[in-house]
Order: sequence, then structure tokens, then C-alpha cells
Amino acid sequence: MSNDIQEIKQSAAAAFIGNSVAVGTEVKVFAPATVANVVCGFDVLGFAVNEPGDEVVMRVTGTPGITISKITGDDGRLPLDPAKNTVSVSVQHYLNSIGRADIGLDIELHKKMPIGSGLGSSSASTVAGLYAIKTLLGDDRDVINLLPFAMKGEEMACGHGHADNVAPALLGGFVLIRSYEPLDVVRLPHPAGLYCAIVFPDVDVPTREARQIIRTKILMRDAVTQWGNIAGLVSGLFMQDIDLIGRSMQDVLVEPVRSMLIPDFYKMREIAMENGAVSFGISGSGPSVFAFTKDEATATLITQKLQQHLTGIKIGSNTYVSTINDAGPRVL
Amino acid sequence: MSNDIQEIKQSAAAAFIGNSVAVGTEVKVFAPATVANVVCGFDVLGFAVNEPGDEVVMRVTGTPGITISKITGDDGRLPLDPAKNTVSVSVQHYLNSIGRADIGLDIELHKKMPIGSGLGSSSASTVAGLYAIKTLLGDDRDVINLLPFAMKGEEMACGHGHADNVAPALLGGFVLIRSYEPLDVVRLPHPAGLYCAIVFPDVDVPTREARQIIRTKILMRDAVTQWGNIAGLVSGLFMQDIDLIGRSMQDVLVEPVRSMLIPDFYKMREIAMENGAVSFGISGSGPSVFAFTKDEATATLITQKLQQHLTGIKIGSNTYVSTINDAGPRVL
Repeated sequence: MSNDIQEIKQSAAAAFIGNSVAVGTEVKVFAPATVANVVCGFDVLGFAVNEPGDEVVMRVTGTPGITISKITGDDGRLPLDPAKNTVSVSVQHYLNSIGRADIGLDIELHKKMPIGSGLGSSSASTVAGLYAIKTLLGDDRDVINLLPFAMKGEEMACGHGHADNVAPALLGGFVLIRSYEPLDVVRLPHPAGLYCAIVFPDVDVPTREARQIIRTKILMRDAVTQWGNIAGLVSGLFMQDIDLIGRSMQDVLVEPVRSMLIPDFYKMREIAMENGAVSFGISGSGPSVFAFTKDEATATLITQKLQQHLTGIKIGSNTYVSTINDAGPRVL
Repeated sequence: MSNDIQEIKQSAAAAFIGNSVAVGTEVKVFAPATVANVVCGFDVLGFAVNEPGDEVVMRVTGTPGITISKITGDDGRLPLDPAKNTVSVSVQHYLNSIGRADIGLDIELHKKMPIGSGLGSSSASTVAGLYAIKTLLGDDRDVINLLPFAMKGEEMACGHGHADNVAPALLGGFVLIRSYEPLDVVRLPHPAGLYCAIVFPDVDVPTREARQIIRTKILMRDAVTQWGNIAGLVSGLFMQDIDLIGRSMQDVLVEPVRSMLIPDFYKMREIAMENGAVSFGISGSGPSVFAFTKDEATATLITQKLQQHLTGIKIGSNTYVSTINDAGPRVL
């Protein structure tokens, strides 16, 4: 899969207009949470999980333009203004690209995961919205065509059109963003028996700030270590070698800085590794952390132990245990 | 394959003593040239080619210790003193590790490739020597056990025990050095139809100097580009996707500096790409350059065009066209 945004937009505009859809037609879509960076793949790797995820209900209205009638699960933090919400903005970009700004849509957004958790919350919503309009219009082109529109949503949400959350949310599985210019994404395989334990400590780590504290200059020596590790991780994914995956998931560049924003990060790592994790790290820019395990019971044990530790230091948390989501978004 | 030098040495010492070999017994071994770095995998990636390569003839003598009776093809540049030659030094380390310093050996080294070419010349000789003693002693353990001894030779040859030439020379194919401490090497697959065109422009680029000019501090932004590319290259190798391999072979960190030591490097790239190369770059620290192609005819054409260009600027050159060597060293 190699995709240049301009190319996709032009082919979309030229090739597709879509069904005419009766007013009142409705679709409900789920899109998965995602773990970006995957420890040693800062800005280029991400994967999707089966749980949690967000839901979008999209309904065709008689009036051109997009409205957002309801958002649940966000504690009132997300804007109902369609010009300011990543879901509606992305969907509007998509509609404009195929020359269908005439369509009227109403959106309900049901957040099923905490905002600002480092689990690709905005990406899941955006991808659910784009998959909903794709479904309504009968757009049967490859979902990869939606990626540039999802990246527009990311640009609004965090100031930069990153793809390391939206791409795995859209494609499912592990996704490598090899290059942004031109956009070149590669879907990677993974071992079937890989489980993911996720813990979201309820503290605030804004994405923008988490990015700003990262050093802009680094040692070549550390970079070599890092690309040896990402090459090892990618090899482990192809070879279905969970131990190689685990050994490769070390981050000498970003984690040492970002971990400072996460309560007891190294203590949590110790707990996870002592309880059978093959690897442990920060999900995206945090504060969520995740561990890979070889079975569900170990993943569950680790979430329990970590939650217990966080409770002990008076920090609330959400926990999730999931396999890798290979399907991306789906109609409910 | 995960290997810690200490562990290997101890297991070698404990487990293996070897055949008693009659005086006069002789073996002749070939070991392949290698291309380290592979453009975007500075210090962690390398691969072996079928041509060129070096040959070692090793003969059991009646007197303990190693002698070097003959070196050909080196224009008198390599030392006959066994304490100063990487082949004998590596073999001596191996003999010491298994407690067999009692053995007497004479070595003939036949250099079949230029020294200082950036094609892993010393590695090929060292690996040939180690494979020769392994063969003489009937050491049927995995060749990976020889890696730490080969790295001792590299340490002497270029001041640092790198493995990105010796590991592919020893194991064949593409090899990733994920980590040095502990030593962790991963053999990678590759597309069957991959051809390599190599051109050695006859100019002097000493390895030590080529290393010294590399920046020690780099931009995080460039490092991200680099590890996106190495992840893409590794994916392409597993996916047998030569185009992805080609797209991924870009180096924003090392090549811009090292290319200054190579005559008309960017002109040579232009010629290679115009004539059908899927990628082009520096082999190791240069001055050799290499291109990947999808067939032998294209590889041959590229070597001819590049040699022609170099002749035009009064620089002599050697050229090689080869598939990937998957076997490593072999008895002749």
C-alpha cells in the first residue's frame, strides 16, 4: 500500500459520487482504540485493540451540512460545533473531496474510552465517522482511501496530521507509517496469541505537552539502538516470535522523558514484568501504559496488579484486556 | 538466535574440544563479501553476496601456534605476522576458548577482493579462517558460535567489534544486529529475484576516517525518518516486496556525509536509477557503491554504465554482479 494524499483525493473526486441515500437512513459504527509508538516505533508504528473503542451513529437528514446532536461519555469536554469536532470535520473533508457537500448528516458520538488517555480516542471517533459515511454512500473502495481524511481530524485534534493512531484504527492490526511524504503505510502481521493489557491511570497528560518535552536533538548512538530495536520488533511480528518482540521493545529516546509524566512508571514496569509481561511501555503519549503477554490470564493479572498499585497511590484507573483488532472499524 | 559473547565462550570451552587432526590435513574455504548498513540500517544491517569473496587455505602443522605462509592479492598490504593479522588473531581466540592452543596451523590467505573497498574484506578473510578451523576440528555446532571470534578480528581491523559485516559473512543472507549487549542477531529472508550490482571506485576511504566524519548528534526528526525506513526495509524483505525495499532504502543521516568521500556519488546514483535500479547506496563505509535490481541484465548494465562514468573521470573500478549469498562460508 503506497498512498499519496493528492493522488487519493484526485482519484476519489474523479471516480466516486456515491449512492443517493434516503433521508432517515442510519448506520452505527464501532472503531477501535489504538496504541501508537509501540515503545520503539515513535511516530511510525501503531496497533489496534478490540477493546475499548468508540461508536458513531450517523443519520441522513434533509438539510445539507453536518450537525452533531449528541455526545455521550465525554463529560462535556468535546464540542458539539461541527466545525470544531474532529469527526464532523473529517467527514466534511471526505464529502467535499467527492463533491457531495449537498448531503445532510446528523452525528451521535458515543465515547467508550477516556479522552486524553493516549489510546487514540479522537482517532477512534474520527475513523468511526468516516467508516459510517463510507457505508452510507456505498463507497466500496479500499478503506485506505479514508486515511488522508482521518489525518485531517488528527491535525485538528493535536496540531499535526499524524497517522500512527488513525492508520491502525482504520486498517486494524499493526501498521507502519514508513513515510508521510509521500504517504506510505504498511500493514504488518502479528503472532496470533498476542494479548495486550492496558491501564489508563486517571491523570492528565496533554498530547501537545507530551510532544513538546521530547528532545529535538539526540545522540546518533541512541538512534542506532532505537532502529536496531524497531527492526527487531518488525522481524518478530513477521516471525511470530513473541520473545524477539519483547526483547526489541526498548526505547532509549522518548520513554525516559515521557515516563516522567506518568505516576510510578518504572514501578509499574517492574510489576508488569514480574507478573509475566513480555514487554511494557507507554501507549502513544500516555498516560496509558500497556503490556504484551502470551495469554489472556497473564494480561488480566497484570491489569489487576497495576490497578491495585495505582489505587495504593490514590490514582484511579481504567483497565482493558484485549487481543489485537485485525478488522478495524465495523458496522454494529 | 540470541547470543551473549560470554555465554558462548563458556559453552564453547565447556562443551567442545574437537578432533585430533593429522599433521598435513588441509582445508580450503571461501567466505563472501558483504554489504553493511544497507543504506538505512547504519551499524545494524548487512547482507552477503556470492561474488567477490576471499579464500583461506589452512593446514595442520606439527608445531603449536599459527603461521601465515602466504598472502596473495593484497599488494603486500597485509601483515604476515600472525599477531597482527585478523584471520590468525580470530582463529587463535577460537583455539584459546576451547583450550586447544596446542594445535599448529599454517594459513594461506588469498584476497579476491580489494582491501579498503567497503565490502567487508577483512570480515570475509576472518570468517573463512574461522570456518576452516571449525571444519578441521569437526566442530558441528551452529556457525553462530563463531561470531564472537570474528568480531575480535573486526575489533583489530577497524577499532570496534562491529558485526554488520562478519555476521552476514558467517550466516549468509541478510542479518540484523538488533543489539550488541547482549549480542542478538536475526537472520532475515529476502526476495529470491534480488540482484546486487557492486562498483568499487579505486579511491581510498579508510574505515576509521569514514566513521569519524559521522555526526554524533542528530535531529530526532531525521532519526524518525530513518527508523521508518529500516522498518519498511525489513518489512519488504519479509514480504518479498522489492519495490517497498527500494522505497525504504533512503538514508538522511550517514549518506549525506559519507558520500562526500566518494567521487560523483550523486551522479552515480542518477545513472543507476535511470538504468533501472530499485535502490542505490554506499556499501559499508565506502567507497564501493551498490544497487539492487530485479534481474541480472539490469545489474550488469548498471555496473557497465557506472564503470564507464568512472573511467570518464579517470578513476579505475572493479565491478561485481551477484545474487544474495544465503550459504555463508563454504569448503572449496
